[in-house]
Amino acid sequence: MASKGFVFGGATGVGNEIIVQKRRCARRGTDVSIENMHQGFTHVFESTFESTGGVKEYIEHPAHVEFANQFLPVLEKALMIDYKPASVN
Amino acid sequence: MASKGFVFGGATGVGNEIIVQKRRCARRGTDVSIENMHQGFTHVFESTFESTGGVKEYIEHPAHVEFANQFLPVLEKALMIDYKPASVN
Repeated sequence: MASKGFVFGGATGVGNEIIVQKRRCARRGTDVSIENMHQGFTHVFESTFESTGGVKEYIEHPAHVEFANQFLPVLEKALMIDYKPASVN
Repeated sequence: MASKGFVFGGATGVGNEIIVQKRRCARRGTDVSIENMHQGFTHVFESTFESTGGVKEYIEHPAHVEFANQFLPVLEKALMIDYKPASVN
């Protein structure tokens, strides 16, 4: 399993997403933190895939490339990090 | 439900975590992204709580405050963002 975390700031909306069969779930939301350590990031978008291969398939999908090319330039900033989640407790 | 995302860079290990009853699950991992947009962040730690009240209880817990006071200074950088996850598909 692999989880793709994407935080960004400065956008007013999120466009359509791409359907990838290997994506198990996706969720999003806006920052509600009270610790003031968000560094100006305002939105979270997180997708979970069956495998890191699923992530690769997703980000290389032509529809995703087209979406990213339109979406990223309108953001003030963006950070993406992927990880293989290990349960802590 | 509320999800707490924490990414950081420069640490070699993560210390003990605090048990909070309202935390439903926690997972962690190191960056495996291939898009080179991680901005130097290397680790992810994510906890999911029953509510934003659970997040507040967690971060204000004396054991968490003590842990944070020891842990944060050894990091090169840290970013925390909380959100109420809405399912995308």
